[in-house]
Amino acid sequence: MAGNTFGTLFKIMTFGESHGVAIGGVLDGCPAGIPLDLKAIQNDLNRRKPGQSAIVTQRKEPDTVEFFSGVFEGKTTGTPIGFAIRNTNQKSQDYSHIKDSYRPSHADYVYDKKYGFRDYRGGGRSSARETASRVVAGAIAKQFISTIKINAFVSQVGDLKLDKTYKNLDLSLTESNPVRCPDPFMAKEMEELIKKIKKEGDTVGGVITCVVQNVPVGLGEPVFDKLHADLGKAMLSINAVKGFEYGSGFEGVKMTGSQHNDQFNSDGSTKTNHSGGIQGGISNGMDIYFNVAFKPVATIIQPYETIDKEGYMVKTQGKGRHDPCVVPRAVPIVEAMAALVLADFALLNRTVKL
Amino acid sequence: MAGNTFGTLFKIMTFGESHGVAIGGVLDGCPAGIPLDLKAIQNDLNRRKPGQSAIVTQRKEPDTVEFFSGVFEGKTTGTPIGFAIRNTNQKSQDYSHIKDSYRPSHADYVYDKKYGFRDYRGGGRSSARETASRVVAGAIAKQFISTIKINAFVSQVGDLKLDKTYKNLDLSLTESNPVRCPDPFMAKEMEELIKKIKKEGDTVGGVITCVVQNVPVGLGEPVFDKLHADLGKAMLSINAVKGFEYGSGFEGVKMTGSQHNDQFNSDGSTKTNHSGGIQGGISNGMDIYFNVAFKPVATIIQPYETIDKEGYMVKTQGKGRHDPCVVPRAVPIVEAMAALVLADFALLNRTVKL
Amino acid sequence: MAGNTFGTLFKIMTFGESHGVAIGGVLDGCPAGIPLDLKAIQNDLNRRKPGQSAIVTQRKEPDTVEFFSGVFEGKTTGTPIGFAIRNTNQKSQDYSHIKDSYRPSHADYVYDKKYGFRDYRGGGRSSARETASRVVAGAIAKQFISTIKINAFVSQVGDLKLDKTYKNLDLSLTESNPVRCPDPFMAKEMEELIKKIKKEGDTVGGVITCVVQNVPVGLGEPVFDKLHADLGKAMLSINAVKGFEYGSGFEGVKMTGSQHNDQFNSDGSTKTNHSGGIQGGISNGMDIYFNVAFKPVATIIQPYETIDKEGYMVKTQGKGRHDPCVVPRAVPIVEAMAALVLADFALLNRTVKL
Amino acid sequence: MAGNTFGTLFKIMTFGESHGVAIGGVLDGCPAGIPLDLKAIQNDLNRRKPGQSAIVTQRKEPDTVEFFSGVFEGKTTGTPIGFAIRNTNQKSQDYSHIKDSYRPSHADYVYDKKYGFRDYRGGGRSSARETASRVVAGAIAKQFISTIKINAFVSQVGDLKLDKTYKNLDLSLTESNPVRCPDPFMAKEMEELIKKIKKEGDTVGGVITCVVQNVPVGLGEPVFDKLHADLGKAMLSINAVKGFEYGSGFEGVKMTGSQHNDQFNSDGSTKTNHSGGIQGGISNGMDIYFNVAFKPVATIIQPYETIDKEGYMVKTQGKGRHDPCVVPRAVPIVEAMAALVLADFALLNRTVKL
Repeated sequence: MAGNTFGTLFKIMTFGESHGVAIGGVLDGCPAGIPLDLKAIQNDLNRRKPGQSAIVTQRKEPDTVEFFSGVFEGKTTGTPIGFAIRNTNQKSQDYSHIKDSYRPSHADYVYDKKYGFRDYRGGGRSSARETASRVVAGAIAKQFISTIKINAFVSQVGDLKLDKTYKNLDLSLTESNPVRCPDPFMAKEMEELIKKIKKEGDTVGGVITCVVQNVPVGLGEPVFDKLHADLGKAMLSINAVKGFEYGSGFEGVKMTGSQHNDQFNSDGSTKTNHSGGIQGGISNGMDIYFNVAFKPVATIIQPYETIDKEGYMVKTQGKGRHDPCVVPRAVPIVEAMAALVLADFALLNRTVKL
Repeated sequence: MAGNTFGTLFKIMTFGESHGVAIGGVLDGCPAGIPLDLKAIQNDLNRRKPGQSAIVTQRKEPDTVEFFSGVFEGKTTGTPIGFAIRNTNQKSQDYSHIKDSYRPSHADYVYDKKYGFRDYRGGGRSSARETASRVVAGAIAKQFISTIKINAFVSQVGDLKLDKTYKNLDLSLTESNPVRCPDPFMAKEMEELIKKIKKEGDTVGGVITCVVQNVPVGLGEPVFDKLHADLGKAMLSINAVKGFEYGSGFEGVKMTGSQHNDQFNSDGSTKTNHSGGIQGGISNGMDIYFNVAFKPVATIIQPYETIDKEGYMVKTQGKGRHDPCVVPRAVPIVEAMAALVLADFALLNRTVKL
Repeated sequence: MAGNTFGTLFKIMTFGESHGVAIGGVLDGCPAGIPLDLKAIQNDLNRRKPGQSAIVTQRKEPDTVEFFSGVFEGKTTGTPIGFAIRNTNQKSQDYSHIKDSYRPSHADYVYDKKYGFRDYRGGGRSSARETASRVVAGAIAKQFISTIKINAFVSQVGDLKLDKTYKNLDLSLTESNPVRCPDPFMAKEMEELIKKIKKEGDTVGGVITCVVQNVPVGLGEPVFDKLHADLGKAMLSINAVKGFEYGSGFEGVKMTGSQHNDQFNSDGSTKTNHSGGIQGGISNGMDIYFNVAFKPVATIIQPYETIDKEGYMVKTQGKGRHDPCVVPRAVPIVEAMAALVLADFALLNRTVKL
Repeated sequence: MAGNTFGTLFKIMTFGESHGVAIGGVLDGCPAGIPLDLKAIQNDLNRRKPGQSAIVTQRKEPDTVEFFSGVFEGKTTGTPIGFAIRNTNQKSQDYSHIKDSYRPSHADYVYDKKYGFRDYRGGGRSSARETASRVVAGAIAKQFISTIKINAFVSQVGDLKLDKTYKNLDLSLTESNPVRCPDPFMAKEMEELIKKIKKEGDTVGGVITCVVQNVPVGLGEPVFDKLHADLGKAMLSINAVKGFEYGSGFEGVKMTGSQHNDQFNSDGSTKTNHSGGIQGGISNGMDIYFNVAFKPVATIIQPYETIDKEGYMVKTQGKGRHDPCVVPRAVPIVEAMAALVLADFALLNRTVKL
């Protein structure tokens, strides 16, 4: 089983190590008849790819996706869509420093213990490189649920936190800066902070906020497969994520019911939206919004002490070209996972009535 | 499909409306040969049941579970365990006030829209009453993974937040007070707050912290079925939950990598535990700890305005016997869902090596 | 996991041993809004139940089903339907003769080896009694796909084989005799054969043919979940089944392609139907027909030699009230499993186009 | 969903049309640490590939598999194994004769009806070409369950049927002739028949028998996922299969229980094996054997009449290089599907006891 499948009807199985031949996946259950915009897919890949700006890793990988099947005369056929992205930049790397020792707060140690050994090159399967496959599938999902609008953006880097809600932001500005924060002034501050952190060979965490608009009423399958429960799992499955909250979230616990309850308008919409667009696990037509917390990347360009396979302490040094802060590149990943969840629930929702 | 199944190998399907004949479920995949302590199961049910103290709903329901199958001569047989809990206290209720109108921040509206109509009695399937089935299954899961210790407790009610970590608390005190907060002084304050809120006919939110100890290295199935991703989904599927974070959580985003990374000891344990016992989605043997945010219960005993099925505004009044704060009774639910996730991953982990 | 779930969207999980408290199940994914005819469900149970005629086991079990949930004001609500059938006739049984020894061609031996021990009373989970739960769920499925007609009947008992195809039979006569063979003359012969076999304390096998009419074009999900592949699995999962063939079946291998190909009429129907209503795993709108082979029941009322748990040879004697031939009572089970498969594919087929 | 996933723990998702860019798949859940013999995999592909002898289709396709992931230093890593086989021989084909009309007894018509349109080139997804992906995955499964021996062979072509059971055949001779029948004399007759049929531009059906030896006691997960039920589904999911029987099969229905029951030896083995190595859905350690019926291939090189998309009758002519009889090339496919089922149940069986 091994956990590399996501979704019930709109379903992907992904494969690939960071330094193997290729990464990719198969998307099964994508409905037939969707005119596929390949440029839009590549565009989302480009938003995720390394080397796109000065504040992300400087690795050069074109991340060009090749489709093998499931598309004919420009449209999806209802059959599985196989795809792969070749790994092109992995040849010259030197991994001797991680082959026999475990990097702190990486998955090296647990992979060795769980599987008996591991593909140590660049983190192998535990590398965030696998998320490129998610972006491909998510970009197709977006085209299936094309009336739903999904916009993620960076709302916090380290201590720098946007004090505006998404309603008071112009989300069309998200892509106007390398941080992907829709507030240009805050974006500049965040960029400076990331550059400073990078210069120190260190890393810093951040938060991505995602807003999903124009969602039809009815998506979500209680009691276990509540819409927000699957969104939460989707987000928590992304590398480095430590937390998820939607609607009023952790702050909402301080409120009373009389403050928190969202009163109805006569059309079924609500005057406030502490619920975050979801009631009882089912979308209510209001905006869905949620926050995703990312820890600071574990790879730092500093000397550190760790253990080798035999448990001896070894001194080593982080190297390579890594992200000082993961959130700018994670924005399209958050959107992709949200799109996969919504596409799946959109299909499931077709089956609930006689 | 309809989302009433949880787990891959250690798997439950639950059923039941709050005011139907019974709630219950089937647990499939529970290994054979577990000596089943029925008292321990009933004890967890009692921790969840209504009427247990002055700060919870005063409904009287014995919540006695009847087992139908899967147990023979005191041990599990490896075949499915069917069980039910009769609904006994629903007869006299009056639901005319909710039959034709939608309670704010309840699932009434979305159920009607999704399914065309709904069982309006006491919330039907959307009632938190269904979580009693989870507690039964979770109590069996605890007995399967009996070497793993799972302790949940209330760490916040409204603004009242424990400022100690679980390491500085005596978790054996959790059950010593009706709030289920292991700090007796804070418990008293929380109890007073809940009583005050209750008197106002209002409700308040809270946070439950859960600590899982003695977990073997290796549980979790990346890339999608990461241990914390499934824990997150499990918690978010509980009624009223708005957020989940593990390890350093949302606070961790402010840290740098050099602060956040957990340095190894020579035995593979780590000096700090910002990771929360999970690396790359796989348990590393350290304590797992996480927080679950619960919103204030939507049912308040106050007059309110809402809409009926035709969209007309109606004035009504919350009534009945409801919880002013859900977290004291939700502690065993959090534990149960954690146990179900861990039991499932314990079985899956048997299958990963030649 | 343990294999007690069937279906993807229209999905049941069943439980229960023959001599435990109850058998039953949960049906999840049944669409909302189906007016449920409880008499029709009980009627199918009655067609399966023991004691209904002189040629089946004389055990007396009322097999009355109790529904716990998922139905409100006479209609399905879209939430899971929990149900149970109490075991009422198991008290006085004496199982000392099978507790410590293994009956030949029963599941006793493999259950002990697989699970370490077994509920030996009446076969436990391996008893065909569990199929009553399938009949309940299948009867609901029939009401969901009410325009599809499913008719199973006995076409062979021992050497006695109907030489007419279903097209030359009046299927309305199936229920007119205890064998459930729609040819009254053959039915009489079969009945005599079964009585003779019964008198000898022996058993005999048989074949059930099932015809499914009025199936819409498009059901089935290749490449693995072909309609006939899931029908085959469904039938093979019934106790005592040894074979499945559809359309031309095993006889078809002798034909040439020019004989076997079904030529089209201009409306898309075909002049012949060797395909059995399924092309490439997808229904083509023609009648689906298939045969299911049942072995002779293993329990014979004769002395026999077998081994005990330690491998010592023991002499024993079959006793109790068993079926001399299983096919008359298996007719509603075959129909139920067919209905479950078709209901599931009917839901899945809603999700394949944009 | 769309049915392109097979298996619960040892699980594949496949993709690919016959004339698209590539076919392939992802195998998830393959345990870590299996030394992978790539030549053995390619060897099974070669047994399936076109052009291997005079009695199969003369298309030339190298069917070389490329692995993308999941293998490191010659061993499986426990992560998903992605692979693809490029389509190399499809360029020059002319499909104008099938683009707008439906070939009788092909999937053309139902694909168009189900999905709205279809990739008509060479049958697209409904082509048996997709089974090459199964052979790859099955060949890996064989290496995981390497102590289990799986031998399939041709036991019938048209009317020519082997009158010996597998016990009286030397299965090592199966690969000694192009028919893959272990009886050299019968193989010669079958070969002549196929050549004659081919000359007539016609096709003929056949039966493959498969024998699985050295299976441990305990594989299979009743009640639905019985070992033979999943074997049956696996076989029925192969293109052109019309029937499946195991053990005594359809002939067994004529026997009495006293004849059919398999008496035990003191070591738990049985004196006869009408059960076909499976009791109650669980392997009992005896040989598993089953028959799979294949219809005559629908593509015949003869003129025929059919309908076009508008329902008008059109005259056309089968062309291309097709198999006159599918069974010789289907032998490794049957073995592959059997191996996938057994590998999955081998993993599942690790999880049933405390």
